[in-house]
Amino acid sequence: MNEIVAGIDIGGTNTVIGLVSKNGDCLIEETISTRNHNSFVAFIEALSHKINNIHHHIGEENYSLKGIGIGAPNGAFGIGSIVDAPNLEWKGTLPICAEITKRTSLPSLVTNDANAAALGEMFFGGAKGMKDFIIITLGTGLGSGIVSNGKLVIGHDGFAGELGHTVAEVNGRMCGCGNRGCLETYASAMGIKRTVFMLLAQSAKPSTLRGINFEELTSKMVTEAALNGDTIALDAFEYTGRILGIKLADTVALFSPEAIFLFGGVAKAGNLIIEPTKRYMEEFMFPIFRNKVKLLPSGLEGKNAAVLGAAALIWQEIE
Amino acid sequence: MNEIVAGIDIGGTNTVIGLVSKNGDCLIEETISTRNHNSFVAFIEALSHKINNIHHHIGEENYSLKGIGIGAPNGAFGIGSIVDAPNLEWKGTLPICAEITKRTSLPSLVTNDANAAALGEMFFGGAKGMKDFIIITLGTGLGSGIVSNGKLVIGHDGFAGELGHTVAEVNGRMCGCGNRGCLETYASAMGIKRTVFMLLAQSAKPSTLRGINFEELTSKMVTEAALNGDTIALDAFEYTGRILGIKLADTVALFSPEAIFLFGGVAKAGNLIIEPTKRYMEEFMFPIFRNKVKLLPSGLEGKNAAVLGAAALIWQEIE
Repeated sequence: MNEIVAGIDIGGTNTVIGLVSKNGDCLIEETISTRNHNSFVAFIEALSHKINNIHHHIGEENYSLKGIGIGAPNGAFGIGSIVDAPNLEWKGTLPICAEITKRTSLPSLVTNDANAAALGEMFFGGAKGMKDFIIITLGTGLGSGIVSNGKLVIGHDGFAGELGHTVAEVNGRMCGCGNRGCLETYASAMGIKRTVFMLLAQSAKPSTLRGINFEELTSKMVTEAALNGDTIALDAFEYTGRILGIKLADTVALFSPEAIFLFGGVAKAGNLIIEPTKRYMEEFMFPIFRNKVKLLPSGLEGKNAAVLGAAALIWQEIE
Repeated sequence: MNEIVAGIDIGGTNTVIGLVSKNGDCLIEETISTRNHNSFVAFIEALSHKINNIHHHIGEENYSLKGIGIGAPNGAFGIGSIVDAPNLEWKGTLPICAEITKRTSLPSLVTNDANAAALGEMFFGGAKGMKDFIIITLGTGLGSGIVSNGKLVIGHDGFAGELGHTVAEVNGRMCGCGNRGCLETYASAMGIKRTVFMLLAQSAKPSTLRGINFEELTSKMVTEAALNGDTIALDAFEYTGRILGIKLADTVALFSPEAIFLFGGVAKAGNLIIEPTKRYMEEFMFPIFRNKVKLLPSGLEGKNAAVLGAAALIWQEIE
């Protein structure tokens, strides 16, 4: 019998379910809608059914399913629940682990997306063998998963690692969390869009981005413009890298990580974002840490990192 | 036989040696000069001699000495050494644990002052039973000791927890580390002095502090002036609390601690510093953490926290 675990990635629109081996091979992957269920319990019913279904499909006689790991927005490890996730239609505290275990008789653990990504990086990506590292997910927002002394930093209430909501600029840009100047309002796909529009307003430089409205603009378009030499787009990456680099310098002073990994849509810009971020991180860093901390693209780019990370949550427990 | 451990606090001028029980009682405490030794090895000889001497004094037949814990500037736990401590006359990497063990045949561990204070707080102070908390030492500079999931955060190279050298103001005040705008240039005894002088320059308000020169001014004088209603002194605490509060809000977002303890000279100002710090920390904090994190004076104030903390380093290991 081969051992496998289920890795579940719950997003606002879709939920992806994979069965993952100890080596990080995803044997099968399926998707169900996160929406259009009558209730949270109805969603759990559908999810549990799908897990049983794909386990049956690959052969229950050959694969022993050991547990179910879940990555979800606002997933709280300590209480096995999703709490007031902004992108989900069900509010309040959702005891997802208890509900899943009730239906599958399998152990279940939940954490937030960025923490799952950190575990995925540690088990299957670029952080293998590292005990102190940080993963930054640069998607629509900015998430971070922090591993210190070989363990996820989850803190007293399970919500630690919110680098995206540290203060990058006092009285700065309005953030969805209700505060102003949070790092994710600058260093994220949405942050880069806002920076492009700020630069288009402040500068008189010509730019192909002047023909695109706010709704249409994506960080991918900014990357393409930068690769074509568009100075507004290049300035936007410089501006983003400066703010992100300064906050990473702070983060290094607190955690002394061996490496910081960048993951997600904006990280696909590669050196356009890594080079300025690294340069400013080194400039503002406490001198004893200088030139010691690697800033790297994620080793899981191109793979389904969210599913692998959720699965790693169970593999870590088994070890 | 009662078990005891030695707690050593190495300062730039003096080194204090105490023998500490598991309950945190300091049975005997003596001091030797840190200076005026021919070499680092000569200092270690004197230190080892003093440890044996006080152990003999309280009765070797009644007390079994289990190990030697050391708190020192730039003490690096992972390598058992003091590395380039700015206040000590010996530079480079000093393998203090190996040297002590060679002379006493006892296990020895070293960490920096702020980490020792954190362990002292956890074993003998206000953080008993807490697994996630932070101690901020507001002395001449600002040190921090961070406990996450019951363990000190020391990071990849042993130097994590440098909150004092995070960026409070880009291109701000010059710091002894070579950077600008580090938090400790604002939130520390020296930082408050600098703030008072800035406010005396900017404002035309009368103040008793106008009659004191920079060399003479101490943070204690600022506290006394504030208690007497001096508006410049009160403004200095407000200014300090704002900068410290914003950086503590960041720190909460990353670590989600149960409590933050303030320790050291400036912390003796009590509510003069705690009230504005708490107010700004709450204002700039990621909303999910609001009104959850205690900001408290250290439970070790008045005790020899440095010696107790150094001793706790060994008690932790024994447990």
